[in-house]
Amino acid sequence: VKKIDANIVVAQSGGPTAVINSSLAGIVEAIKGSAALKRGCKVLGALHGAAGILDGNFIDLGAAPAAKLKRIALTPSSALGSCRLKPSKEDCRNILAMFKKRNVGMFFYIGGNDSADTARIIWEAADADGWPLACWHVPKTIDNDLRSCDHTPGYGSAAKFVASAVMGDDLDNRALGGVKIDVIMGRDAGFLAAASALARRRPDDGPHLVYLPEVPFSRDKFAADVKGVLARLGRCVVAVSEGIRGEDGVPVAAKLGTGEKDQHGNIQMSGTGALGDALARLVREETGVSRVRADTFGYLQRSFPGLQSRHDFALARDAGANAALFALRDFSEGAEPRACTVGIARKPGRRGAVSFKPLPISEAARETRCMPREFISPEGNDVTEAFLDYARPIAGTLPFCEIF
Amino acid sequence: VKKIDANIVVAQSGGPTAVINSSLAGIVEAIKGSAALKRGCKVLGALHGAAGILDGNFIDLGAAPAAKLKRIALTPSSALGSCRLKPSKEDCRNILAMFKKRNVGMFFYIGGNDSADTARIIWEAADADGWPLACWHVPKTIDNDLRSCDHTPGYGSAAKFVASAVMGDDLDNRALGGVKIDVIMGRDAGFLAAASALARRRPDDGPHLVYLPEVPFSRDKFAADVKGVLARLGRCVVAVSEGIRGEDGVPVAAKLGTGEKDQHGNIQMSGTGALGDALARLVREETGVSRVRADTFGYLQRSFPGLQSRHDFALARDAGANAALFALRDFSEGAEPRACTVGIARKPGRRGAVSFKPLPISEAARETRCMPREFISPEGNDVTEAFLDYARPIAGTLPFCEIF
Repeated sequence: VKKIDANIVVAQSGGPTAVINSSLAGIVEAIKGSAALKRGCKVLGALHGAAGILDGNFIDLGAAPAAKLKRIALTPSSALGSCRLKPSKEDCRNILAMFKKRNVGMFFYIGGNDSADTARIIWEAADADGWPLACWHVPKTIDNDLRSCDHTPGYGSAAKFVASAVMGDDLDNRALGGVKIDVIMGRDAGFLAAASALARRRPDDGPHLVYLPEVPFSRDKFAADVKGVLARLGRCVVAVSEGIRGEDGVPVAAKLGTGEKDQHGNIQMSGTGALGDALARLVREETGVSRVRADTFGYLQRSFPGLQSRHDFALARDAGANAALFALRDFSEGAEPRACTVGIARKPGRRGAVSFKPLPISEAARETRCMPREFISPEGNDVTEAFLDYARPIAGTLPFCEIF
Repeated sequence: VKKIDANIVVAQSGGPTAVINSSLAGIVEAIKGSAALKRGCKVLGALHGAAGILDGNFIDLGAAPAAKLKRIALTPSSALGSCRLKPSKEDCRNILAMFKKRNVGMFFYIGGNDSADTARIIWEAADADGWPLACWHVPKTIDNDLRSCDHTPGYGSAAKFVASAVMGDDLDNRALGGVKIDVIMGRDAGFLAAASALARRRPDDGPHLVYLPEVPFSRDKFAADVKGVLARLGRCVVAVSEGIRGEDGVPVAAKLGTGEKDQHGNIQMSGTGALGDALARLVREETGVSRVRADTFGYLQRSFPGLQSRHDFALARDAGANAALFALRDFSEGAEPRACTVGIARKPGRRGAVSFKPLPISEAARETRCMPREFISPEGNDVTEAFLDYARPIAGTLPFCEIF
């Protein structure tokens, strides 16, 4: 079906994660370990995602020394650069023209749901044109919101950062008291804010309240919740997802922020302290507590070096390697090149173990998933034991903390 | 002079650090290792600093198992709780009455300059009353602004966190571009914001600009600096101290925040994103760059678990242990009980090595120190190599990062 000497392009897209380069290394190492490269095909890295393909901005990944690739794998953020480009019809024609010019027959796109959709669009353009192009989406997102994955590469490391940060912050709040609000990333899904609950070791440890985008946010309920914790413990640590929405479904942050949108229509939420400050004002007014503080964890959550979850690091590498192996198998079997994503399922019985399988790329594209009902407490202001059991092996070992 | 069976009180005060409990453990272990405790004296921990002494809120630190104390030492934030109380004359009388009631002859206060001043006030009250009370201030502050110390316990770990965070953030900015502003703690001194520069490995690594409270902040100069970096690199990472002041000497954050002050007259700066958001708006307006983001690192800088600098952890323990040994030597030599702080000097020739000596407590109290001129670049928007040489051994090993 496909010329065996066709070249391969790898690119990264969307928000970086702490392990997205582990997927990149997983793809490159799997390809270099196969027969494909020996037959003369090149592994190119496109700089800044689809934008780099449009510009013909490539580096020779196959030529990167193995030791350098190992160090890249351990480095957070997207080593190839990223973009948030949603290709237009014209972009697709130009990407395809570039792929033809460079004799590209296989494309790996490491990203979230928007990136899966981009890969799908490019595949459709190639298919309509009769150019055989295998498009493989390799999942990554700290939001953990892909329908095709039990959990996504990138989530575990961000969850470990968030749980560690809230653990330290709760100790800080024990020392000085008052109300502390921590705003955590997560546009539509509350998985990352929920991970703050992994910080708890003792019954009175924070976070004492957890607010998720999945539960309509009520100012009155929030104020009453905080008052309740203050009455019980004399202090309160609150974890809030940046994506919380009012009863009207509109994100609370969208009413406060710059209103800036990316090309996929996503409103800017991170990189501003507006939501935390607004909630702090609300608590100050409603409770009369003078020491109310808010921190917005921001970009530290997704790109902090040296703190990766071991499970997450291996998951990201294996997702990349499996995408490469699936794609190479299609080639060697002479199958039609497909547009696929790597599905990740959890093996029953063994808590952290996973299996990988190819799924139609549409299963990762566009619509995201949210926290299931059984992960959210009946009151809607906390997570359940079922969530903690789910998340613990993903985030991996957390720091300990001791109190008198 | 002093009854050898007098009891000992240890307390913590001011903002927590990641290693303040290492000083606590250093004090307790040194006392337990001496003859004092064997002769029947108790080591009491006052909960929430001077406030806990007023309330008679003590725990028996001498009874804490050694293994528990070791785990406490490795846990961030103040395990005894903290406070920001500046004792009034009446408070001092009541503290003294409590010390008499509990037969306390030795007091260790782990804190910054305000805590040193509090210990001084308590000592003067005891002295005027004829109650023999040794008051020892053990330095801690992430701000690194005590005149009595080459560098303070707590600074190294916060510096390591800040440098790691900015290293990751710079990688994130490489991937997605635009302007990123990171707001870093430091009310009057820029040492912690300056530590962001430890993140650099390559000539084009961020932070590309560093703004300190020591240099009057000009909106126009700031906008021109950012434009210059954008012209050169096409992206820009900025580290800003929360304490930056306008030409009029008024902190920029003070004009934006809640205006809340603590009892020492310090304006609230952390726990709000207002400064970062204001600077991001300014950059957006002045440069026309659409992707401008600001993160305020907030309380994560001082209480993040598992990330302590090894140098800092040992420094904090040794500062506590030396305070105890100095105080016990005074006792055994029959000297008058003093009000002292533990001075920390750097040994010449050996970059990280330090020596400890008793200094009058006034040398740590009230006035703080700032970044010396030789640590600040001539243009006032960066640090010098001299600063990096100074800070490197204090922050210790940082994560590596690799790029293509």
